[in-house]
Amino acid sequence: MNKIIPRTLPGTMELLPKDQILFNDIKNKIINVYEKYGFLPLDTPIIEASEVLLAKGGGETEKQIYRFKKGESDISLRFDLTVPLAKYVSANYGELVFPFKRYQIGKVYRGERNQKGRYREFYQSDIDIICEDNLPLINDAIMPSVINDIFNSINIGKFIIKINNRKILNGVLEYLNIDNKVETLRIIDKYDKVNIDELKSWLDEIKENISDFLIPFINTNGSNDEIINELKRMSIDNDTFNEGVNELETVINYMKELEIPETNYKIDLKVSRGLDYYTGTVYETNLVDYPSLGSICSGGRYDNLVEYYTDKQLPGVGISIGLTRLFYQLLESKIIEPKSYSLVDALVVPMSNDLKYSLKITKLLRDNNLKIDLCTIDKGFKQKLNYANKLKIQYVIIVGEDEENNNYVTIKNMNTGIQDKVDYNKILDYFKNIKKS
Amino acid sequence: MNKIIPRTLPGTMELLPKDQILFNDIKNKIINVYEKYGFLPLDTPIIEASEVLLAKGGGETEKQIYRFKKGESDISLRFDLTVPLAKYVSANYGELVFPFKRYQIGKVYRGERNQKGRYREFYQSDIDIICEDNLPLINDAIMPSVINDIFNSINIGKFIIKINNRKILNGVLEYLNIDNKVETLRIIDKYDKVNIDELKSWLDEIKENISDFLIPFINTNGSNDEIINELKRMSIDNDTFNEGVNELETVINYMKELEIPETNYKIDLKVSRGLDYYTGTVYETNLVDYPSLGSICSGGRYDNLVEYYTDKQLPGVGISIGLTRLFYQLLESKIIEPKSYSLVDALVVPMSNDLKYSLKITKLLRDNNLKIDLCTIDKGFKQKLNYANKLKIQYVIIVGEDEENNNYVTIKNMNTGIQDKVDYNKILDYFKNIKKS
Repeated sequence: MNKIIPRTLPGTMELLPKDQILFNDIKNKIINVYEKYGFLPLDTPIIEASEVLLAKGGGETEKQIYRFKKGESDISLRFDLTVPLAKYVSANYGELVFPFKRYQIGKVYRGERNQKGRYREFYQSDIDIICEDNLPLINDAIMPSVINDIFNSINIGKFIIKINNRKILNGVLEYLNIDNKVETLRIIDKYDKVNIDELKSWLDEIKENISDFLIPFINTNGSNDEIINELKRMSIDNDTFNEGVNELETVINYMKELEIPETNYKIDLKVSRGLDYYTGTVYETNLVDYPSLGSICSGGRYDNLVEYYTDKQLPGVGISIGLTRLFYQLLESKIIEPKSYSLVDALVVPMSNDLKYSLKITKLLRDNNLKIDLCTIDKGFKQKLNYANKLKIQYVIIVGEDEENNNYVTIKNMNTGIQDKVDYNKILDYFKNIKKS
Repeated sequence: MNKIIPRTLPGTMELLPKDQILFNDIKNKIINVYEKYGFLPLDTPIIEASEVLLAKGGGETEKQIYRFKKGESDISLRFDLTVPLAKYVSANYGELVFPFKRYQIGKVYRGERNQKGRYREFYQSDIDIICEDNLPLINDAIMPSVINDIFNSINIGKFIIKINNRKILNGVLEYLNIDNKVETLRIIDKYDKVNIDELKSWLDEIKENISDFLIPFINTNGSNDEIINELKRMSIDNDTFNEGVNELETVINYMKELEIPETNYKIDLKVSRGLDYYTGTVYETNLVDYPSLGSICSGGRYDNLVEYYTDKQLPGVGISIGLTRLFYQLLESKIIEPKSYSLVDALVVPMSNDLKYSLKITKLLRDNNLKIDLCTIDKGFKQKLNYANKLKIQYVIIVGEDEENNNYVTIKNMNTGIQDKVDYNKILDYFKNIKKS
């Protein structure tokens, strides 16, 4: 028979068990934080009607989307979790409780040109808070508090949440009489990625000499309070600007009250986010020792989530983690490393083909919430221990004839080599003590 | 602006939060059982190269598959989790530890004609044990042990795991000199779904009068031991048959040693599974009070997982739960019902715009692993309590001026209406006591 080469599509991530265990561990920690904050789980389909996903239409999205026909249906794979959220909230408006706080961790699809660290199928991990009318600014402070808790819990070293308010930038651009604000914001968004002279020339193309004002402005530095004071001191006569400064000040104050360590966040007026979508607070997050990784968690506030589907006005605030890419980068940079090759607490190794006593012990431990693998290899003792070694299982419970006849087991610690004879009645205590220590 | 109707494709499942919470609860319980048995997590891509997914080729699969081109790539959405497992094991053969025990819960896609309870995007929840050479029969007994633990833990009433061995049926058909064994097995597989006279005529079309022997044979009844004895007593002179009987007896004995209650399983010689894929033990699972739901968990043993990709011979045994369909059926039949509309332990309700003390309490509780929502609604007390009511949150922590000035909170039990004044230092104990009771 002709064999097919077993391959996985480029731009998709498929992990070995040790890495999958690590990935799941991170994912579970993120879910724990989301749920601790009262976010509700959501799971929308990966396939959607193309006209629904492309309601906004045009642009990069349409080029990158995986779209196909099946029978009469024009189907696309979702390219983010925001559009499905907008659809969901519009469709289920009457059934949801607002403010609606949801989390969703799921795969999204973009047919990007394949390059290292770029994924075509990848997990996004999103939270959003959607409101019926006014969304109080405390919600803008909750987002960085969630980010802070997540990155502390997955222990990835020093990080900094950069925060800004779009109204400050928009106000300044209005104040400078710049018409093409979206384009200007896009240029500012590239600040850390391009040569400064090039950036200046781009800005001055928009309007003569504006880089002289804009570049020092977006580099306003100091503590958060100092930056707020500096912004006020500028007395820029523009309502949008002043509204932005006031909002930013309020959000920063809430962040203090939420006790987010000030070392973990700072105002950065360069943060504009590329998308025209955001209307207020915006966020980016960087690893301090790995700035080249770019933002690992971004988001912001928007005025209207559902405008393509209904006339209702539903503002919200949200953040997104590109989980697959982040995981890849953390692993590549050795910021995280797989520790477990197995999830079990112990391996039961029967020494004969009579499994009765081995199965009794396995059941006892499993019934008491221990994770137990049973070695079913039909070979010698060495091969059985080898299985434990390869999976880095620390405790092996050896069950031979003598053990069965005298109602005990031999427990071998594979790290130390120490073997203990443990009475059947003491096995549970033995593992309880290990779990405690 | 023209609005797009926010709709979800037919044949996909999208749940309200209360149902999603219930779904996730079931999913997590299943994962807990899998991990308790030492299965390792796997997450393969949903998109695969078409030639890899269709290596086996032909048939119903090819018609139902979602397949499309993107650039040069011929891509398909996976239609099960078995073919991706075969691909994964072949591609990563050198890196895996055998026996390789993996679980995978993920969405699969089949473009079936849309009808109630039939899904085009649905979760499958699979476990398999893959061996390098001989797969000992204890593994065939582990599968029903896992099924038993899962359906006990999700508490769906009485169920029965039906077990058989393909060799018994194949051996009988050999003994009866029936050539078209696959077709005959397919007919037997329809036993519970069609009229008995129709079934008889189908069988007799295969070979004259075989229904006279086959129908009583597959209805052999009694206790498991009685059926085994009856099969032996028949002294059918066929090696395959006798091998099947011996295997079934061994597996049943292991199931006893695994202490699976005998009320939860029984030998059923009618179970043949439609697929030509299975070569030994086969399983189906029914809900005793809802037989019309059909099998909710099926599987079996196969001789070679990877034949389309390599020359290696890797036998295995596995089971699959069609989770989306099962969930839909359990919900429709009211076997399960949503209980929680929120995941939180309590809602903090600030009575003024000064949030400092509210945020302090929220943080204290979250830092101690309680799940806490913060009510950010900028309206009256009634609206805030209404939010708690709609989400069925039992405990509301009211934080007003008096509370802040005197360092306490008022905790209202929304079920009983009882309010307690609780000192700041006692809040944690208050909730620890609730959790304990």
